[in-house]
Amino acid sequence: MREDKIGRANVEDSEELLQYYKELEELNTGALWNVANAIEPWEPKSSSVPMLWRYNDLRDHVVRSIDLVTPEKAGRRVVYLANPGKQEIGAAVGWLYTGIQAMKPGESTSAHRHAASALRFIMEGSGAYTIVDGHEVKLEPKDFVLTPNGTWHEHGVSEDGETCLWQDGLDIPLVNILEANFYEVHPDISQARSFPVNDSPATFGGPGLRPVNEPWNKAYSPLFRYSWASTYEALVNYSKVAEASPYDGFLMEFMNPLTGGPVMSTMGAQMQLLRPGEHTKSHRQVGSFVYQVAKGKGYSVIGGKRFDWQERDIFVVPTWMYHEHVNLSDSDDACLFAFNDLPTMRSLGLYREEAFGDNDGYQPLV
Amino acid sequence: MREDKIGRANVEDSEELLQYYKELEELNTGALWNVANAIEPWEPKSSSVPMLWRYNDLRDHVVRSIDLVTPEKAGRRVVYLANPGKQEIGAAVGWLYTGIQAMKPGESTSAHRHAASALRFIMEGSGAYTIVDGHEVKLEPKDFVLTPNGTWHEHGVSEDGETCLWQDGLDIPLVNILEANFYEVHPDISQARSFPVNDSPATFGGPGLRPVNEPWNKAYSPLFRYSWASTYEALVNYSKVAEASPYDGFLMEFMNPLTGGPVMSTMGAQMQLLRPGEHTKSHRQVGSFVYQVAKGKGYSVIGGKRFDWQERDIFVVPTWMYHEHVNLSDSDDACLFAFNDLPTMRSLGLYREEAFGDNDGYQPLV
Amino acid sequence: MREDKIGRANVEDSEELLQYYKELEELNTGALWNVANAIEPWEPKSSSVPMLWRYNDLRDHVVRSIDLVTPEKAGRRVVYLANPGKQEIGAAVGWLYTGIQAMKPGESTSAHRHAASALRFIMEGSGAYTIVDGHEVKLEPKDFVLTPNGTWHEHGVSEDGETCLWQDGLDIPLVNILEANFYEVHPDISQARSFPVNDSPATFGGPGLRPVNEPWNKAYSPLFRYSWASTYEALVNYSKVAEASPYDGFLMEFMNPLTGGPVMSTMGAQMQLLRPGEHTKSHRQVGSFVYQVAKGKGYSVIGGKRFDWQERDIFVVPTWMYHEHVNLSDSDDACLFAFNDLPTMRSLGLYREEAFGDNDGYQPLV
Amino acid sequence: MREDKIGRANVEDSEELLQYYKELEELNTGALWNVANAIEPWEPKSSSVPMLWRYNDLRDHVVRSIDLVTPEKAGRRVVYLANPGKQEIGAAVGWLYTGIQAMKPGESTSAHRHAASALRFIMEGSGAYTIVDGHEVKLEPKDFVLTPNGTWHEHGVSEDGETCLWQDGLDIPLVNILEANFYEVHPDISQARSFPVNDSPATFGGPGLRPVNEPWNKAYSPLFRYSWASTYEALVNYSKVAEASPYDGFLMEFMNPLTGGPVMSTMGAQMQLLRPGEHTKSHRQVGSFVYQVAKGKGYSVIGGKRFDWQERDIFVVPTWMYHEHVNLSDSDDACLFAFNDLPTMRSLGLYREEAFGDNDGYQPLV
Repeated sequence: MREDKIGRANVEDSEELLQYYKELEELNTGALWNVANAIEPWEPKSSSVPMLWRYNDLRDHVVRSIDLVTPEKAGRRVVYLANPGKQEIGAAVGWLYTGIQAMKPGESTSAHRHAASALRFIMEGSGAYTIVDGHEVKLEPKDFVLTPNGTWHEHGVSEDGETCLWQDGLDIPLVNILEANFYEVHPDISQARSFPVNDSPATFGGPGLRPVNEPWNKAYSPLFRYSWASTYEALVNYSKVAEASPYDGFLMEFMNPLTGGPVMSTMGAQMQLLRPGEHTKSHRQVGSFVYQVAKGKGYSVIGGKRFDWQERDIFVVPTWMYHEHVNLSDSDDACLFAFNDLPTMRSLGLYREEAFGDNDGYQPLV
Repeated sequence: MREDKIGRANVEDSEELLQYYKELEELNTGALWNVANAIEPWEPKSSSVPMLWRYNDLRDHVVRSIDLVTPEKAGRRVVYLANPGKQEIGAAVGWLYTGIQAMKPGESTSAHRHAASALRFIMEGSGAYTIVDGHEVKLEPKDFVLTPNGTWHEHGVSEDGETCLWQDGLDIPLVNILEANFYEVHPDISQARSFPVNDSPATFGGPGLRPVNEPWNKAYSPLFRYSWASTYEALVNYSKVAEASPYDGFLMEFMNPLTGGPVMSTMGAQMQLLRPGEHTKSHRQVGSFVYQVAKGKGYSVIGGKRFDWQERDIFVVPTWMYHEHVNLSDSDDACLFAFNDLPTMRSLGLYREEAFGDNDGYQPLV
Repeated sequence: MREDKIGRANVEDSEELLQYYKELEELNTGALWNVANAIEPWEPKSSSVPMLWRYNDLRDHVVRSIDLVTPEKAGRRVVYLANPGKQEIGAAVGWLYTGIQAMKPGESTSAHRHAASALRFIMEGSGAYTIVDGHEVKLEPKDFVLTPNGTWHEHGVSEDGETCLWQDGLDIPLVNILEANFYEVHPDISQARSFPVNDSPATFGGPGLRPVNEPWNKAYSPLFRYSWASTYEALVNYSKVAEASPYDGFLMEFMNPLTGGPVMSTMGAQMQLLRPGEHTKSHRQVGSFVYQVAKGKGYSVIGGKRFDWQERDIFVVPTWMYHEHVNLSDSDDACLFAFNDLPTMRSLGLYREEAFGDNDGYQPLV
Repeated sequence: MREDKIGRANVEDSEELLQYYKELEELNTGALWNVANAIEPWEPKSSSVPMLWRYNDLRDHVVRSIDLVTPEKAGRRVVYLANPGKQEIGAAVGWLYTGIQAMKPGESTSAHRHAASALRFIMEGSGAYTIVDGHEVKLEPKDFVLTPNGTWHEHGVSEDGETCLWQDGLDIPLVNILEANFYEVHPDISQARSFPVNDSPATFGGPGLRPVNEPWNKAYSPLFRYSWASTYEALVNYSKVAEASPYDGFLMEFMNPLTGGPVMSTMGAQMQLLRPGEHTKSHRQVGSFVYQVAKGKGYSVIGGKRFDWQERDIFVVPTWMYHEHVNLSDSDDACLFAFNDLPTMRSLGLYREEAFGDNDGYQPLV
C-alpha cells in the first residue's frame, strides 16, 4: 500500500527488493515500509457497522429459548447480538458484547467468575436478582447492575416472580483479544447469600454519604445496583436546573460513589435524557457504545444512517462515527441507557472527540 | 522540665550553664535540652475541655440578639461557644469555632469570602437559604450546608419564612493560627443568584451519578447541601443491613460525591445513628469534634465525665480524649451530627485512634 | 464447542435448534451457548509464540536496507520482527510491535505524530538524536528513549556521527485493534528544535528533585531519555544493598519521575540485572514482553523452550507463559532491557501473575 | 475592635449590651460581633519577624555545648533558633523549629520516634550518620536527610570521624499546636542497623527508576538522603537549559521519587541556584521558610529589610512577607537550601502567592 505523500511509505517493488523481502520473511521479519501505511491509518475506521435490533423482532426468539434449552445445559440462556463486521468474535460493536437473557421463575444460573467485566440492564419481568460475592440485589425493570471482573456472580428469578428478560453487557471480546480472560465455576455451583439482601445499595447508595466503617479498595464500584427510580429522578432534577449539552442533552454517568470514577475499569455506563423534541448535534468519540432505549420514541443518525427506536430497542455506535439523537415526542422526554468502553480509552490515553462541523452540526442522511 | 529517663533531657543547672543560657538568649537562641521535654510530650493533652451547651440555656439569648443588634452592624448575629480552655481564641474545641446564628424573615448578611471554611447545620425555622458563588440552596431544619474556603457566600431568610436559628461551624481558629486567613467583602455587598435555585443538589445529589458535562476541579464538594431527609433515610437503610461499629454505631461521613473524600480540605462532617439502647465502647482519636444532637436523647461520656443531651444540644470532644455515646431511648434511634478536623489530621499524617482497653471498653466516671 | 462440566455450555444440536439458529442468524444474533465456551476460556492461551531473533542474523539485513531504500521513500527504514502467530498484524508478541531501524550520518526522518506510543533502545552507532515536541535528546548505545502518543517526533543521525541502529518499540497493534489510531505528518515536515539540546534529561533527570517552575500535566513522563550510564549505575547500586527477587533478579522499572508511574499509559519498560550464574525461577504474567539483551550472555526458558542469547539479541515472552532467565557467565552480570504492556493490563484490572510451582520452580524443557 | 465598613462588625457598647455580654460569658459563650473583626483579618500578618542568624556568631556556642553537656543528659545537644515573635514556643518562624546540633566522634543519640517530622542539613564534619527504621545513611556536608514522622531514628558520628554540626528542622511547633504529638524512646535505646548501609539511596536514588520489588505505601519519601553532589549537579544541569524564574532563579524541590510529591506530609524542602549577579523579584507566599546558605554570598530583602548572608548562615521568611534574593558574586553561583511548610498549606487549601507589583518588583528598603 503505497502513498505518494511526504512522510508516508512509497517504495516501488524491484527484483532486488522482492528477493530481499523473501529473505526477511525467512527470518520472521519484514520491511516496515510495505505495511507502514496500513498499520498507521490517518484515523480510525471501525470494522463495526451501526446497527439497531428491534425488541419486537427479538423478544419472541428470546422467550422461545426458554423452551429450547435449560440454563443447566446452556450455561446462560442468552441470544447475543452480532455485529456483521464482528461476527467471528461475537461482538455487538467494537470489543463490546451484548445479549438478551431469559429466565423463568425459580431458575438460576450457576455461579462463576471471569476476568471479563459484566453488567445488566433489566428489560421486563419481576423477581430478578443477582448475587455478587455473596451480596444479593433485587432487580426491577430498567435497573442497572454490575458484576465486576473477578467477582463470583449468578443470576436468577425468584419462585414468585415472572419470566424476566434483561440485557447483558460484557467486555469479553476486549479481554479475549487482550488474551487476559480467565474463567472459573464456583466450587459450590451456587454461592451463599452471605449478606442481607440489597445491602450494597443500602450501604453505598446514600447520596453524598459514605459509611465510615466499610473500607473498600477494589477497582470497581461497591454499589452494585443503580435503580431506575433514583436514576430517572436524578436526571429530571438535573435537567430542570442545568443547560443541556448540545451533543448529549442531559447526560449522567453511573459512577463509583467512593471515587467519582467509572463503575468498572474497562466499561462505563450512562443514562441520558432528551427533552421533548430535542435533536442533539452530531459528534464522534474514540469509543464504542451500546444503547438501550429506556423510555420514549425517537431516532438516531449514526454514520449518516437513520435508526428509529422505541423502548427496549438496542442500537450501537461504532468508534469515531458521528451520531446524533432525536426525541420524536412533543410532550415526553426520552431516555437512553448506554454502556461503553470509554474508561478503557481514557486509561490508555486514546480518548478524543470531535464535533460535526458542517451543516449546522447535523449529518446529512446517506 | 527535667525527666529522669533515658532519651529525655535531664540537665542540672550550673553557674556556667546559666551564663551560657544568657549568652544564647542574646543571640535569639536557646538550649534545646531546657525545653525538649516540654515540646516533645509523650502524648497529646488538649488544652480544651469537654463541654456541653444546652439549647434550652442558649436559645433565648440567641433570639434576644435579634432585638439587640442588626445584621448590618453585627456583620453576622451570632452567639459563639467558647471553650474555657480556648477562650482567648474563641474556639469551641481545638481549632474549631462554632456559634448559633439568628435571622428574621427578610434579613440577610452581606456576601463575603475568606480562606477559612464554613458549614452550617440548621436548627429551626423555615425559609432559610444560603448562596455560594451564585448558587442558592433552600434550607430546612437539620440540613447540612457548605460554604467552602474562597467561595462568596451569604445567608438569609425569605420574607415569608420564620425566624431561623442555625449552627455555624468554621475552622477560623485553625486558619488564624496558621496565619493564612484572608477576608473580602463582596464588591456588590450582596451577590447575584446566577443559577436556578437548588441547582447544586439537583446536579450533584443523584446517588451514584455524575453529570458528564459539569467539570469540577475544586478541592471541595460541589454538593453544597445535604438534606436531612436523604441523610436520615440513608442512615436507616444502612443500619438495616450492616453491623454497627462498636465505637460509632452506624456512622456515615458526608463526602464530596465526585471524589469520595471529605467535603472540604480542613473539616469533615458526619452523621451517626445510635439504635435504641445502644451504648458504644470508648475510643479516642487525634482530632477535635463538635457535635449537635440531631435526634433523640442520651448521654456521652467524654474524658470520664457524663454529659446528658437532647435534640439541638451541642457538645465537644477534645483531641485524644476517650468518648462513648449512649442512646437512652428503648424505642427510638438517636442521631448525632458532628463536624471535625479529621481531614486536617489525615492530610498531615497525624491521625491515629485507640480503643479504651480496660473495663470492657467503658470509661469509669470520674 | 461443548463441555461436559457444570457451568459450561453443553447443548446438543437438534433439528429444531438448527432451525432456530438459522432464524437468529437472520436477525444478526446468535445463541450464546454455541460460542460461550470458546469466548470464555479457562485461561489465556496466547496466539503468539516465544521467539528469539539473533542480532547476528539480522544486522546485515538491516544495514543492507540503507542501500535499498531511502528514508524519504520508506518513511522509516525499518525491519520489523513478525511473530509467526501474529504475522497478519505485524506484532512481535501480543499487541506489541518492534523493529530495527538504520540511519546513516546526515539522515533524518520526517516529523510525525500518532495515537500510538513509541520508544527506542539504541543498539549501535554514534550521533543519533530524537526530537520530541521540539526537545532534542542525544543518544548513545543502550539509551532508552520515549516518543509518547500525540507528540511530534523525528529521529536522525548527525553529519559527524556513525551509522546507527536502534530498536523501535510501539503499541501500534494494540492501538489499531482498539480502532483508535491517528496519524499526522508535521506541517513543516521537519520540526524546529525549540529548546536547548538535552533539556528534558537536564530538567527532569535529577534524582529526587523536581523543578518547581516546570508544570507538567501530561499522562506520560517528561523525561524522554534514560541513559544507559545512569541506569546501569542505579542497577548495580541497587543490587549491592537489596535481595534479588527469585523471579526477576534485580528489576527496575523506568518511571515517570513526577508520578512514579509508568513512562507511558500503555507501555512500560524495565531493565534487570542477573548476577553471575543467576538462574531465576519461573513465573508467568498477564502481559507481553519484548526483551533486548543489553549486556552479557545467557539463556531464557520460555514456555518450556530454551532460547540462548547474547548482547543485542531480541526475544519475546507471550502473555501468561512461564519464563525464567539464566546468566551463563560466572564473573559478569547480565542485563536485560524489556518493554511490555503491563500498564495496559494494570489500568484495565487484568494483571495477574503466578509462580511455577513444580520442579522447585524451574520448567522442564519441552 | 469595630470597623466602619459594610460587612464588618461595628456595634457600639450600651448598658443593655454589656449586661448581655456578661450573661453570655456565664454560659461560656460570647457575641461574635465583638471578636469578628479580630478573628477575620483582611490578610495574614505573621507574628514572626524576619531573622538571620550568622554562623560565625553561633558556631562557637554550639561547639561549646560539647563540653557543657553530654548527649545522654541533653537528649540531643542542640542550640535552637528562637524567633523573637515566637519565643514561647521555640519556633524559628511560623510553626517551624530549627536548631544546630553538635556531635563528637563516637557519640550517638538514643533512638526515638515522634509524630513530628524531622530533617537535617549537614553543616560540617565527617563521619555523621543517621539511622531511620534500621536503614543507615552516611552523611557529608550539605547532604539533606529525612527522619519522617513515626520512624525510629537516631544520629551519630563514627569513631573515625570529625566533630559534626548540622541543622535540624522539625514541625514540632505545628504538631504541638495541633495537639497531635507523641513521643517514644526506642525499647532498646539504640536501634539495630537492619539493612546494608546507604540502602535507601542505593535503592531509590536512581533517576527515573523504581525497584519493582520494593513496595512502598508510606506517606513520606523512601529516599532518606539527598546528597549535595547529585543535587548541585542537577541544579547546574537544569540552569543550563531552562529559563530562570523571576522570583526564584532556578528552584528545585526535593521530592518523594515514587510520587513526585513532597518528601513529607507537613514539610517540604528545596534547593535553589542564583546565577552570578542574579537579583530575583519580590513575591510573597502563604507559608514559612527556613533557609540555610549552601553556597556563596549575597543578601535577601525580607519585609523591606536587608539581610546579608554567606555560607551556613540561617535566615527565615515569615508567611505572606515579600522576599527577594541577591547573589553578590559576579562569577560564582549561590545556592540556598530551605525547608518550609508549603505541603501543609497546600493540603489544607490555604496556599497562595502574590508578586510585589510596585517598583519594578523590588521592595524599597525600610
